[in-house]
Amino acid sequence: MTESGKPILYSYFRSSCSWRVRIALALKGIDFEMVPVNLIKDGGQQFSKAFQALNPMKQVPTLKIDGITIHQSLAIIEYLEETRPTPRLLPRDPKKRASVRMISDLIASGIQPLQNLSILKKVGEETQLTWAQNAITSGFNALEQILQSTAGKYCVGDEVTMADLCLVPQVANAERFKVDFTPYPTISCINKRLLALEAFQVSHPCRQPDTPTELRA
Amino acid sequence: MTESGKPILYSYFRSSCSWRVRIALALKGIDFEMVPVNLIKDGGQQFSKAFQALNPMKQVPTLKIDGITIHQSLAIIEYLEETRPTPRLLPRDPKKRASVRMISDLIASGIQPLQNLSILKKVGEETQLTWAQNAITSGFNALEQILQSTAGKYCVGDEVTMADLCLVPQVANAERFKVDFTPYPTISCINKRLLALEAFQVSHPCRQPDTPTELRA
Repeated sequence: MTESGKPILYSYFRSSCSWRVRIALALKGIDFEMVPVNLIKDGGQQFSKAFQALNPMKQVPTLKIDGITIHQSLAIIEYLEETRPTPRLLPRDPKKRASVRMISDLIASGIQPLQNLSILKKVGEETQLTWAQNAITSGFNALEQILQSTAGKYCVGDEVTMADLCLVPQVANAERFKVDFTPYPTISCINKRLLALEAFQVSHPCRQPDTPTELRA
Repeated sequence: MTESGKPILYSYFRSSCSWRVRIALALKGIDFEMVPVNLIKDGGQQFSKAFQALNPMKQVPTLKIDGITIHQSLAIIEYLEETRPTPRLLPRDPKKRASVRMISDLIASGIQPLQNLSILKKVGEETQLTWAQNAITSGFNALEQILQSTAGKYCVGDEVTMADLCLVPQVANAERFKVDFTPYPTISCINKRLLALEAFQVSHPCRQPDTPTELRA
């Protein structure tokens, strides 16, 4: 936390996991300070000694809050939910909470890790686009089917939940990797509804303090 | 659920994510029926139409319980925790809960997906051992450091938590991929303590109904 007691979010404008947390902070109206960590510049600022001391996984997002440092976006969101419960990002009903966490984990464990920057580097430049598209479409094929039984206005029912915080950034990655959205009408429709909400707009990668000028909107 | 109302776990003996859930069920003393899904045989039974209808991600574990079907091991464990809270797998203190979820997610999103069967198939036979070792050691390097500030007898303090349910199966994978444990004294020590507990033994891959005879212990 800063001297003023504000939480500090270590973030990168384009990191989809950082975006999840930025949406949560915006929805819950939590005032915070942002420290940009450029994952590309200087060979990756996440590899600096200072940052590694903060997060040995060398990843964003990382949140300093209430005297502790939390890594992993979903762990951060669950902590915010437990300590700042309004508005809720998890429904009251345990069965609906299970749907929210299932969709969140499907994206956070089943899609995002397989198409993130460090993996694509290892895969090599020639095959990385196909690799990323395969990872995303095989996850989205399942997600589209699951949403047909869980969705209302949003991923689970008619309230914004943690699942929606995972969906929108993953859709943005899919667009970046030129995924064809024809097979995903439910995903597309929910994504569009969510992007109309202020919390998803102020947290958007095109509006961050570290967004390069040419990508600003 | 079965006609008798027992939950049904779709599981594969060697799947580390299935093992996480088997430990939770054992610790909480939940009686269940197991349906083995062989991820190798017949080109992978998870790809059958019947199984895809149950879990469009084509993955184990999948749990049918209380009239719903849940995929994703951590979503399953959180649901069990909310509906069958004794014994606790998450501490009462939100800050400690954050540590538990951070470690769980580090393994479930940061390590396991990068070394699972379907990815290693894509990586190709020649490089898959090195690929898996790199994924595990880069995660374990961080985890060893994190545990130094969170661990007591187990990953977070002196009670078994969800983090421990993720640790032991990941260590077993690491051993299978011949990872050198010299740099990980804390991980090794916690793993050894956990393996001495009955719930970790009855759920062990070498003691499942679908464990091949030559791997039984």
